[in-house]
Amino acid sequence: MFHNIKLKNGETAYVKIYNYIKEVIENGMLPHGSKLPSTREMTSMINVSRNTIIKVYELLEDNGLVYTEKGKGTFVSKVNINKNSDWNIDWLNKINNYAKTAEELDIMKHEQLYKKGMISFKSIAPDESLFDMEELKRAFLNRITLEGEKILNYGYAKGYKPLIDFLMNYMKEKGVNTKGKSILITNGFTEGFDILLSSLTNRGDKILCENPTHNTSIKLMKLHELDIIGVRINEDGIDLEDLDEKLKDNKVKLAYIIPSYHNPTGMVMSFEKREKLYSALKSHEVPIIEDGFNEELQHLGAHIAPIAAISGEENSVIYIGSLSKILFPGMRIGWIFGDEKLIYTLESVKRSRNIHTSSLDQAILYEYMKSGSFEKYVKKVRNIYREKYELAKRLCEEYIPNKFILGDGGLYLFIKLKDINARELLDRCIKREVIFTPGDIFYTNGEGLDTLRLGFSRLTLDEIEKGIKIIGEEAYSDNRVQRTIDS
Amino acid sequence: MFHNIKLKNGETAYVKIYNYIKEVIENGMLPHGSKLPSTREMTSMINVSRNTIIKVYELLEDNGLVYTEKGKGTFVSKVNINKNSDWNIDWLNKINNYAKTAEELDIMKHEQLYKKGMISFKSIAPDESLFDMEELKRAFLNRITLEGEKILNYGYAKGYKPLIDFLMNYMKEKGVNTKGKSILITNGFTEGFDILLSSLTNRGDKILCENPTHNTSIKLMKLHELDIIGVRINEDGIDLEDLDEKLKDNKVKLAYIIPSYHNPTGMVMSFEKREKLYSALKSHEVPIIEDGFNEELQHLGAHIAPIAAISGEENSVIYIGSLSKILFPGMRIGWIFGDEKLIYTLESVKRSRNIHTSSLDQAILYEYMKSGSFEKYVKKVRNIYREKYELAKRLCEEYIPNKFILGDGGLYLFIKLKDINARELLDRCIKREVIFTPGDIFYTNGEGLDTLRLGFSRLTLDEIEKGIKIIGEEAYSDNRVQRTIDS
Repeated sequence: MFHNIKLKNGETAYVKIYNYIKEVIENGMLPHGSKLPSTREMTSMINVSRNTIIKVYELLEDNGLVYTEKGKGTFVSKVNINKNSDWNIDWLNKINNYAKTAEELDIMKHEQLYKKGMISFKSIAPDESLFDMEELKRAFLNRITLEGEKILNYGYAKGYKPLIDFLMNYMKEKGVNTKGKSILITNGFTEGFDILLSSLTNRGDKILCENPTHNTSIKLMKLHELDIIGVRINEDGIDLEDLDEKLKDNKVKLAYIIPSYHNPTGMVMSFEKREKLYSALKSHEVPIIEDGFNEELQHLGAHIAPIAAISGEENSVIYIGSLSKILFPGMRIGWIFGDEKLIYTLESVKRSRNIHTSSLDQAILYEYMKSGSFEKYVKKVRNIYREKYELAKRLCEEYIPNKFILGDGGLYLFIKLKDINARELLDRCIKREVIFTPGDIFYTNGEGLDTLRLGFSRLTLDEIEKGIKIIGEEAYSDNRVQRTIDS
Repeated sequence: MFHNIKLKNGETAYVKIYNYIKEVIENGMLPHGSKLPSTREMTSMINVSRNTIIKVYELLEDNGLVYTEKGKGTFVSKVNINKNSDWNIDWLNKINNYAKTAEELDIMKHEQLYKKGMISFKSIAPDESLFDMEELKRAFLNRITLEGEKILNYGYAKGYKPLIDFLMNYMKEKGVNTKGKSILITNGFTEGFDILLSSLTNRGDKILCENPTHNTSIKLMKLHELDIIGVRINEDGIDLEDLDEKLKDNKVKLAYIIPSYHNPTGMVMSFEKREKLYSALKSHEVPIIEDGFNEELQHLGAHIAPIAAISGEENSVIYIGSLSKILFPGMRIGWIFGDEKLIYTLESVKRSRNIHTSSLDQAILYEYMKSGSFEKYVKKVRNIYREKYELAKRLCEEYIPNKFILGDGGLYLFIKLKDINARELLDRCIKREVIFTPGDIFYTNGEGLDTLRLGFSRLTLDEIEKGIKIIGEEAYSDNRVQRTIDS
């Protein structure tokens, strides 16, 4: 720590060094009894004469801060350090309801967690071994060369212009009419959804969503103290009759919908259903937040137009996209696409919260995307995930007693068990080192006790097989009389 | 866009292609009259036989989606595209008060902005030409080599462990007692402050701060609808008598203090004053949010212990640090240091908002910091900024009619003018292509109309000289009778 003492021209060296050491001692950084460097050592550390150091040590001793033991050295005296120690705040008592709720709804803290050695069906994150690191390095070095230091200074709240332009075009390619629309870059989907709820809702507002739906979104809707209206999902997707009823019975402010690779069911909503859904919401003047979750997995295949495309020239759909799902989640890049007046205001909300999303990450991602690496990557991973999906689906059908299994591809399956409590099943599976996500966390109303989500994206084919067989064995081992669970 | 058509095994190719093109047309991606690729071109784009394409084109024509002009090609018919165009939402009417306030308080939208060619004293961002890009590249490549793809998958809400450990040690080096304390990584200072206010305050709570203070912080306190109690800053820093009075008269929930290179005054609070301030707040049981803003500029010099060090073993100070101020603002990395129970809850708030801060950026920054590049960088830039500071200070004293000039180094000066309205002065200076920040935006109560902040970090010595002379000329050109402005 003494290396830190630097002297300005004209300052009296011994005063400066004395004050520094005094402060260090008084702040308790050097505890009672600890040995100071010898004057010779100290001289070589700080560029002053030995006489100066001797003078400093004398002064320290004069003031009772150190004592000398002949032949042993100089030691720190017992001084009135850490004088402040009697004020102990009970912070948990000072935390407001919002933060308490965030903690209570944090599944990383209140659900069973993966432990080393387990086969984990919990994760729906991409398999990182598929990331193309050479392309990423190239993207980084290219962008740094082109942009220079600029990219590391402050950027714009709205986002990195080349990335915004790229994404506007990307939305066009999805069939979306971009006239009068604009984009705000966010730290992933989650920030996008939080900013939207923060800006468009008030406590108690009714928000409509699929039931089950993405648990992080449920958490955010609860944190914003919204009244969540869940619309049933059946074996063939969202129940449009239930939707109509819910719309009739409630004054709904916003709808939140995940049409592609719906989380947790993995279903892809058909084009026809998207159109009907849109019409129904339109007739009740309910704007839509469309979660583009994993739509990228469809990117090169039979692409079904997002609801944002169906809305045509209308400004009723706010689309949240994310490149931090199947590509590089560690980078946290997403975007909100919507009416340009709305985006203009959201930009200020974003600025007030964290100035802007990392310009470096945005620039790297832009370079990576525009080079065509993303298309190559998606093409590669789709085939790999499809293989895992087909195996997992086949095995689940064979081994797990189910009422139905949902999932049109993607990274996970959703299973409705045959009269088995998924949490009890989970407890038994964990004993055999297999873990999955109990489905009830995706329900808005405590249902789904007989459901579970199996994520297979990061497992090998062997692990998938071994894990599903274990789940099946444990499911069939349930010999107790089952209480019938409502579907 | 036709490259996007990919066929699955077993699907009837012509149906698939037909449906794709039909959808593209019906969604309006191909406007009326646009020409389709020839069947030959299309054949080479999609890997199918020419006969298949011919069949598709016939079907499209049969269904009225395209028409053929002999010898010219195939064109898109006028179809019922963008059928949705009659629902136009007035989003500005749907935005809540929070978002409206964020927009109203957004100085990037409501203050005069820098235009190319101007000498701008507005910015207090670092001079990016001082960034050591080679070291940054090295840090990136090293970390990627060591961590591999892992660093690009999901990380932890709390932050990247090696960076947290590094920063805990960094706090220790500042003289801070880290026992029972912990760190949460955030997207810069701003997110840290927002998370704290979101978690610890309720509408109407009283928060005490220096007056003037950081305008972004004022914005956040207003967005959280807090009752802001500003404590006067005089020529010799925060007015402790005013502090005592304010504490006596108000039930204050939290204090927000910027002890080092205070923004906007640039003052460094003395150790004695820090101790007195702490005692005063302690006696009223007011916990402190310490903004470590630009403390790093002190890092290698006469380092005054942060208030977090003075608090010793107590858990009363929450310190917000940032490496996104003088180092790489584009990366947005900051941290909250405080009581571990508090941090444990804040971690859940962070997770609910954006999962975590970019792991890639955290890893790069960690590598950069631990290599010693940061110390080298700070040493270099301190000398350069000191030269600018000394010049700016000397010139301001000589040329600008002032009551006092504040600033103990750093990146900016704060000037109280001699009976001149700073906004009127700004208007005149802008005509001469010089811009600065009017000081009133830093005041909690509309004062400071005769003050301004001059940021010089990104200007050359010549620009500093030219700009200050112009401001001085315009100040003295104020021949009208000045109304006396209250200080």
